Amino acid sequence: MPGNTSNLVRSNVTTVNVDQIPGLNTLGISLVRIDYAPYGGQNPPHTHPRGTEILVVVQGTLYVGFVTSNPENRLITKILYPGDVFVFPIGLIHFQFNIGNTPAVAFAGLSSQNAGVITIASAVFGSNPPINPDVLTRAFQLEKNVVTHLQSLF
Amino acid sequence: MPGNTSNLVRSNVTTVNVDQIPGLNTLGISLVRIDYAPYGGQNPPHTHPRGTEILVVVQGTLYVGFVTSNPENRLITKILYPGDVFVFPIGLIHFQFNIGNTPAVAFAGLSSQNAGVITIASAVFGSNPPINPDVLTRAFQLEKNVVTHLQSLF
Amino acid sequence: MPGNTSNLVRSNVTTVNVDQIPGLNTLGISLVRIDYAPYGGQNPPHTHPRGTEILVVVQGTLYVGFVTSNPENRLITKILYPGDVFVFPIGLIHFQFNIGNTPAVAFAGLSSQNAGVITIASAVFGSNPPINPDVLTRAFQLEKNVVTHLQSLF
Amino acid sequence: MPGNTSNLVRSNVTTVNVDQIPGLNTLGISLVRIDYAPYGGQNPPHTHPRGTEILVVVQGTLYVGFVTSNPENRLITKILYPGDVFVFPIGLIHFQFNIGNTPAVAFAGLSSQNAGVITIASAVFGSNPPINPDVLTRAFQLEKNVVTHLQSLF
Amino acid sequence: MPGNTSNLVRSNVTTVNVDQIPGLNTLGISLVRIDYAPYGGQNPPHTHPRGTEILVVVQGTLYVGFVTSNPENRLITKILYPGDVFVFPIGLIHFQFNIGNTPAVAFAGLSSQNAGVITIASAVFGSNPPINPDVLTRAFQLEKNVVTHLQSLF
Amino acid sequence: MPGNTSNLVRSNVTTVNVDQIPGLNTLGISLVRIDYAPYGGQNPPHTHPRGTEILVVVQGTLYVGFVTSNPENRLITKILYPGDVFVFPIGLIHFQFNIGNTPAVAFAGLSSQNAGVITIASAVFGSNPPINPDVLTRAFQLEKNVVTHLQSLF
Repeated sequence: MPGNTSNLVRSNVTTVNVDQIPGLNTLGISLVRIDYAPYGGQNPPHTHPRGTEILVVVQGTLYVGFVTSNPENRLITKILYPGDVFVFPIGLIHFQFNIGNTPAVAFAGLSSQNAGVITIASAVFGSNPPINPDVLTRAFQLEKNVVTHLQSLF
Repeated sequence: MPGNTSNLVRSNVTTVNVDQIPGLNTLGISLVRIDYAPYGGQNPPHTHPRGTEILVVVQGTLYVGFVTSNPENRLITKILYPGDVFVFPIGLIHFQFNIGNTPAVAFAGLSSQNAGVITIASAVFGSNPPINPDVLTRAFQLEKNVVTHLQSLF
Repeated sequence: MPGNTSNLVRSNVTTVNVDQIPGLNTLGISLVRIDYAPYGGQNPPHTHPRGTEILVVVQGTLYVGFVTSNPENRLITKILYPGDVFVFPIGLIHFQFNIGNTPAVAFAGLSSQNAGVITIASAVFGSNPPINPDVLTRAFQLEKNVVTHLQSLF
Repeated sequence: MPGNTSNLVRSNVTTVNVDQIPGLNTLGISLVRIDYAPYGGQNPPHTHPRGTEILVVVQGTLYVGFVTSNPENRLITKILYPGDVFVFPIGLIHFQFNIGNTPAVAFAGLSSQNAGVITIASAVFGSNPPINPDVLTRAFQLEKNVVTHLQSLF
Repeated sequence: MPGNTSNLVRSNVTTVNVDQIPGLNTLGISLVRIDYAPYGGQNPPHTHPRGTEILVVVQGTLYVGFVTSNPENRLITKILYPGDVFVFPIGLIHFQFNIGNTPAVAFAGLSSQNAGVITIASAVFGSNPPINPDVLTRAFQLEKNVVTHLQSLF
Repeated sequence: MPGNTSNLVRSNVTTVNVDQIPGLNTLGISLVRIDYAPYGGQNPPHTHPRGTEILVVVQGTLYVGFVTSNPENRLITKILYPGDVFVFPIGLIHFQFNIGNTPAVAFAGLSSQNAGVITIASAVFGSNPPINPDVLTRAFQLEKNVVTHLQSLF
């Protein structure tokens, strides 16, 4: 049952939404289990374009947070222990990061039968085809060779 | 009436939403005017957490696009001339970039009285307080000193 | 790009909704461009049964207004110049009228992918088949021959 | 309990919505009873900007109808006897007309706790203040003195 | 037109929803007529999973009520006479009971084109196949033989 | 963290909704943890008037089910082991029952910030004040003394 965390970000999301259970259609809810490897397994910064997420930790210790929209861009974070609950409002960029020395496990409900996931790094630097680097160079204040290097990684 | 584009991204968004017109509350619509400086003025990659956007160009030539969600991360782009219309679906990362040698102007409707704006670079690297760089280093595959440098810029 | 205003009301509405862009379905937004001939080109009294409208004038001078529902039937009007914005709440009867000596142009967002348009005069006097004139005679306090004359026009 | 039909249109609508029952707020439903005098009592052409109506006749004989939106403006009508049911979709212009020689009574549910009522003749010719007659003259193809006369009646 | 009340609960519900009128789809409204036999004809405790109900009595005298949710389980009741109106909020258990010596008739609007009906006794004791009696024995604090007897009746 | 199951039904529901986290308002999601004692701890037949539930078992073995609405009253059941997921659609009567010899634990997301809970036995037989027993006697086909006895228990 634990998801395989042998990957770049050392975490794994198992999703149960309308693709797995067609009867969820129009019912506005789905569920995920997230596994995090010890010492830094993370669910990297991402958004759900169509759902708010409510997460409960069942094992491990997570540093979690989300960033509010313009103009504040305020970061709200918390250290979560087993039994703690946290909410990531619809569309906001958020992440979870395992700061413990054991695997961590969380479950989360999402307010859509198909909330969608946009991993920021993958969408910005790993789109297919790539975004014109002139856009990203200025937007992220990066040297063009850094942008094209990132585009080769994702 | 043209917005002032003397800024880092050389564009300007003038918003008319429920903050300017309280009577818009519950009515599910707002409007923006966007001005772009010639030769690369851009509305950098961002999302609207609560609204779809429909944009019409009234002056200039824009390279615009959005990226779909995981796992495809497909980039959809188009070159827009005056009179052309384009749609950015709710919550997806999108941008506009002036590829012409004149100022460009667009108007856009958004399907919310308060659609919100999340500028990706500002939310990820410019949050207040900053996101723990260990999260961003792995998520974006950047050297830690690049991350902290970016956090000093935004 | 300017719409052809050589018609009875001397205005033209160009619509971009789910009929033109199928991907707009469920996204709750559409856009129109409206052209008005000088000296009285008008978008005559009408309603959108499924959408609120937010309008911005880009050229010319418009006298615009809407009427609230029973029992007040209050008329809210404003003279709009380029850059001015006005809101017509969902379902209310509203109009725009070019009081300037030049063509006028406006763009408007609507809070539905298919807001619908009911031109009051056409729906009341120009329905197909016609409404029984006995209904309209009393409802509008008109002579029956005036009603049947109007029914021949629309 | 019968509403008083001694008025211009010889009908009476008794409404039970969120104004009478505050607990209806957010519940999306309201109810009306409509009484019609014999020989032509009518509920004149009107719209509900925020609700669909489903009507059942409990006494009398009604000629009822609604007109679809542009460009068809199709009139859909039916003669209703006690027990018959008819639907008036949200925002469309509709009417009921007693074609019998007895009083008629109907009940109707509306899909909003506050559906609103726009009586077309009152909103167009009886707004307060009046709409500029130049707008109405052309929109309804009426002589200006007919418009101003109608504006004095409503 | 009166429904046939020769049944166990001595009442009859005639429904007009999207099954009878396909055009009601997405319009969020439906209508029912309910007939109650004299001396105790009842619409037994039930819920509508997808709609609030607003009911008007046109004949007879009804004892009606609904029960709020946990933890209060407060019963709200009223005696209704012809012309009285009552609201049953979405999803709450409610009933009507004819306490008069004449037949009773009511009409009700529901805030869905397909509100659904769950008759509590039928769903709990009459499901197909039956619920494991061990569940019901403890849940309803009934002897197991009473549960299995009830399961044979419904 | 485990809820206290020393009660009549030998289960415990810990709820995190808008009452615990005010920021959940309008976000349409909440979460519960449910603990079940071994050998028959149950979450008795109940409905959520404003939410669909998606449940995941993290420990133990649960017999779960829901009953569809009239006229089928079909019972859908499944035996769930750790990692299994099940959906209870909005407003339908459902239950979970621990058929294992160890405590069981489940988490569930609900599609509302305040889904509400109606425990059927408590609402029907334990309302405050009680429902007139004549209503329940016929509705549940029980002897009157059984009804009044049940009303004394809940």
